[in-house]
Amino acid sequence: VPGFSGIFAPIPTPFAGEAIAYPALAENLEKWAASPLDGLVVLGSNGEAVLLDEDEKVELVRFVAAHNPGGKVIVAGTGCESTRATVRLTRRCAEAGAQAALVLTPGYYKGALDDATLERFFTDVADAAPVPVLLYNMPRNTGVNISAALAARLSRHPNIAGIKDSGGNIVQIQETIAAAAPGFAVFAGSGGFLLATLLAGGVGGTMAVANLLPDECAAIYRLFCAGRLDEARDLQRRILPLNWAVTGKYGVAGLKAALEMRGYSGGDVRRPLLPVGEAARAELRRLLADGGW
Amino acid sequence: VPGFSGIFAPIPTPFAGEAIAYPALAENLEKWAASPLDGLVVLGSNGEAVLLDEDEKVELVRFVAAHNPGGKVIVAGTGCESTRATVRLTRRCAEAGAQAALVLTPGYYKGALDDATLERFFTDVADAAPVPVLLYNMPRNTGVNISAALAARLSRHPNIAGIKDSGGNIVQIQETIAAAAPGFAVFAGSGGFLLATLLAGGVGGTMAVANLLPDECAAIYRLFCAGRLDEARDLQRRILPLNWAVTGKYGVAGLKAALEMRGYSGGDVRRPLLPVGEAARAELRRLLADGGW
Amino acid sequence: VPGFSGIFAPIPTPFAGEAIAYPALAENLEKWAASPLDGLVVLGSNGEAVLLDEDEKVELVRFVAAHNPGGKVIVAGTGCESTRATVRLTRRCAEAGAQAALVLTPGYYKGALDDATLERFFTDVADAAPVPVLLYNMPRNTGVNISAALAARLSRHPNIAGIKDSGGNIVQIQETIAAAAPGFAVFAGSGGFLLATLLAGGVGGTMAVANLLPDECAAIYRLFCAGRLDEARDLQRRILPLNWAVTGKYGVAGLKAALEMRGYSGGDVRRPLLPVGEAARAELRRLLADGGW
Amino acid sequence: VPGFSGIFAPIPTPFAGEAIAYPALAENLEKWAASPLDGLVVLGSNGEAVLLDEDEKVELVRFVAAHNPGGKVIVAGTGCESTRATVRLTRRCAEAGAQAALVLTPGYYKGALDDATLERFFTDVADAAPVPVLLYNMPRNTGVNISAALAARLSRHPNIAGIKDSGGNIVQIQETIAAAAPGFAVFAGSGGFLLATLLAGGVGGTMAVANLLPDECAAIYRLFCAGRLDEARDLQRRILPLNWAVTGKYGVAGLKAALEMRGYSGGDVRRPLLPVGEAARAELRRLLADGGW
Repeated sequence: VPGFSGIFAPIPTPFAGEAIAYPALAENLEKWAASPLDGLVVLGSNGEAVLLDEDEKVELVRFVAAHNPGGKVIVAGTGCESTRATVRLTRRCAEAGAQAALVLTPGYYKGALDDATLERFFTDVADAAPVPVLLYNMPRNTGVNISAALAARLSRHPNIAGIKDSGGNIVQIQETIAAAAPGFAVFAGSGGFLLATLLAGGVGGTMAVANLLPDECAAIYRLFCAGRLDEARDLQRRILPLNWAVTGKYGVAGLKAALEMRGYSGGDVRRPLLPVGEAARAELRRLLADGGW
Repeated sequence: VPGFSGIFAPIPTPFAGEAIAYPALAENLEKWAASPLDGLVVLGSNGEAVLLDEDEKVELVRFVAAHNPGGKVIVAGTGCESTRATVRLTRRCAEAGAQAALVLTPGYYKGALDDATLERFFTDVADAAPVPVLLYNMPRNTGVNISAALAARLSRHPNIAGIKDSGGNIVQIQETIAAAAPGFAVFAGSGGFLLATLLAGGVGGTMAVANLLPDECAAIYRLFCAGRLDEARDLQRRILPLNWAVTGKYGVAGLKAALEMRGYSGGDVRRPLLPVGEAARAELRRLLADGGW
Repeated sequence: VPGFSGIFAPIPTPFAGEAIAYPALAENLEKWAASPLDGLVVLGSNGEAVLLDEDEKVELVRFVAAHNPGGKVIVAGTGCESTRATVRLTRRCAEAGAQAALVLTPGYYKGALDDATLERFFTDVADAAPVPVLLYNMPRNTGVNISAALAARLSRHPNIAGIKDSGGNIVQIQETIAAAAPGFAVFAGSGGFLLATLLAGGVGGTMAVANLLPDECAAIYRLFCAGRLDEARDLQRRILPLNWAVTGKYGVAGLKAALEMRGYSGGDVRRPLLPVGEAARAELRRLLADGGW
Repeated sequence: VPGFSGIFAPIPTPFAGEAIAYPALAENLEKWAASPLDGLVVLGSNGEAVLLDEDEKVELVRFVAAHNPGGKVIVAGTGCESTRATVRLTRRCAEAGAQAALVLTPGYYKGALDDATLERFFTDVADAAPVPVLLYNMPRNTGVNISAALAARLSRHPNIAGIKDSGGNIVQIQETIAAAAPGFAVFAGSGGFLLATLLAGGVGGTMAVANLLPDECAAIYRLFCAGRLDEARDLQRRILPLNWAVTGKYGVAGLKAALEMRGYSGGDVRRPLLPVGEAARAELRRLLADGGW
């Protein structure tokens, strides 16, 4: 699928209290529009998608699609626990302007979600989706893993275009690429293994840290494509500590705090999430300073 | 809270295809009404709550409350990922007839859901709830655990009445009971550790197998209360294999298949769940026969 | 097997620097001899068995057997990673005076240690052992679990007398007892679930906290046997916090520190283990004071 | 340290029944001597080290050092549960001809093995070791992880030369390399992430599959060093399925069966390990055929 490569930012949803702060979002969108990012993912884990109602989700996609002067590829996260809710949301988001759907695995009934059940789920969704589907593997949050064998089978579906793999198991990522249909787009789902995924044959990354450092993330991608491995490796190393801080360590609240420090609008998190404390902010400031940002 | 003790059945939601099969549900409700069950939990894990839309959930509670000739205590599962959705659903379910809310922990952002965040979440919900709140600990599905120390703190909230603990860690259950406020109601969340929970000072069980074997489950409770330990233990042992089959091994689909074999209406599961196959059915039939049911 | 019931203390091995401190051990043995303990386990997890050489192990068993004025049942931990080392050590310990062998599962090749392989292992050992074998399930340390089905099959071996289950999964413990051959002795492997195991049909406990509180642990057992459940439950609850502190939280080093506070000889731990710090000691003192000890 | 780079084979220990089959080992050593391998690791996980007695271990190192016509670097695995046994074995293996010691983390008391305790352990061992120490991180077998921060601190010890990281967490491997002292040698501990480790700045691999495919593994290393990434990636992909089969899936027994198919001497595994069955052999044959080997 044309356009499904490079660096995508899974954008956060800024809140003012419990309400979506659209003006703050608009400001961020302007900045990302001017960046070298290739695309934006609305309604991902960093977008607090699971904390939004369905109507809010659709409205958010519509807003982002309408504020896209840079012509970035717009992807919407549409995975829900039920197949029917996923299909419905996928259709509504496509109608609202999403060019692709990033479909998270269900997770609640993890004991029942074996490969055959997941294959049925993704096939049902992709059959019904008016836009291409990207699989979304996020085992740390869902407790469910999309195996390489399953990804390879699904890659044969005409409406399944790729995967965002946030598991970070580089052996599995290589196996997925090796076994998938040609052209199946494999994205690193976190900034920590972008370069390793590219080396394995992946096409890019969809990663929290790209919200903060779009230039640097895009540079890693371009340097790799240009064969300038040593420079790519140096840059990859440089983003590792900040990447960890805004994902595994402090999560979305940490990402939002860091965005404020970088001149973006972070906004509140929605409950049950709570803002990070002063110690976390101090560490984030230090990491940004250490990186020269 | 009066009435929060004994055996509760977390009832399944029968589907016909993807639609809720209300006539089938009505039939089941009549049977459970005539049973010695103390209460019914609508919208629990066995009720496929995460696969239902909010309006469906409220309608389901209203239906059960309206078909309750036995005067069972009606509890509604109202936990969602966001605090606001949980509060809203709790209010709507209370208005629809639920006498208490069983509030599952959020789970998606498990890395951020430390004790302080969970305490805030449950306090926010309990503050706003028009009916008493029961905590719902289901670490196997959510990846989040309500520690004994957290449960003990929350037990002091005037609107938090108890916990359904499906984790099955008997040390934690004992610690919870020992540390909680007097009168805090601790329920075994699965039939496998009902008797152990009662011995620890728990007040009952809320468990899938009670849908199938309401008489036997109620008998374990009554025998324990009467000090007839040997008989209670024998019965507890007898239900172990079937309990495992309709929870850990085959899950909701297995429970529904077994319900059909017992003369109840099982109905379909909703996608992404799939029905169990013939081998599972054969095992369920054998387990029912082995138990003399 | 006569004598395999009641409360056993898995005794620590006191060190002076890196050498076994036999005089300190002799002092402790005198105290335990005068206690209501039913038996002593040498070379268990609390005995730092994996940190001892084979000759040290045999010498230790010989010493304990020779300092047993109370006529306690002496059990030796003899599980090693290889079958041959386990068999050799079992024979040597039996010759040195052990009346039974507590055989830990191997753990290093956990990926290969399926039920069939473990069954072969325990059968090989039991076939060769001159004394009865007790299985030792310690999944937290080994990463390997003896399933109820496996325990039930092994319970039919004429030279396998029982199991110490430290996993604490009360459902599995019940399943083991239900499925095992009559007379198969199931011991709680930690003080936190002694009463629950007795209720399930177990015969006693082999638990770290019995080193510290032999009277209280023996009392729980006797009260349960006498049908005085409420008193047993109260005492069981009372030992929970200290039990956790000397097992999960601070481990062997914590147990040794607490022993000193109770008038026993704790001695050093052997490297790589390190002694607990002052904060841990303060907590242990507080827990002992809280319990009235 | 000169010589600590490139591809090392962690050689299996062939048994005839329960005895070490030295003639079979000698045959294998001749073949590996003629290969492009840079070194041999005796007494690693694939060498069934935990199943050998201390004297057997030393004898094995002596034998390999004496049958080393190719002048390969000889590394001995010397990690034991206790510090003292590790130090003693390290000294004996050095005396027997090992040029470095690969020191596995202890694992049994995993709850107590925090970073400070592990740092003390490795420092004690490295202080006493007459040869350079390589850390050995094998979390799947030990349940213990050497964090990047710990590896970085230990990399400053004058007698700690590097690490074999079998965890496969590519983010951690990158962090280790970024934070370690210059010259600290990081080896991929399994063939599945050799290329990713090299790209991250690692110096080579120590991996089971190198026993079977020394030419191919060495070629991946050389192609990477020569900047021929596409060829390196193709070869890396080609070895993935076999690598998985002889590590995660079938383990040492699978590796030995595959060695026989490749013309080496596999020999028996030592109990409790059991040989693989016919289905596994058929799969291994197929994987070898698929790879063209």
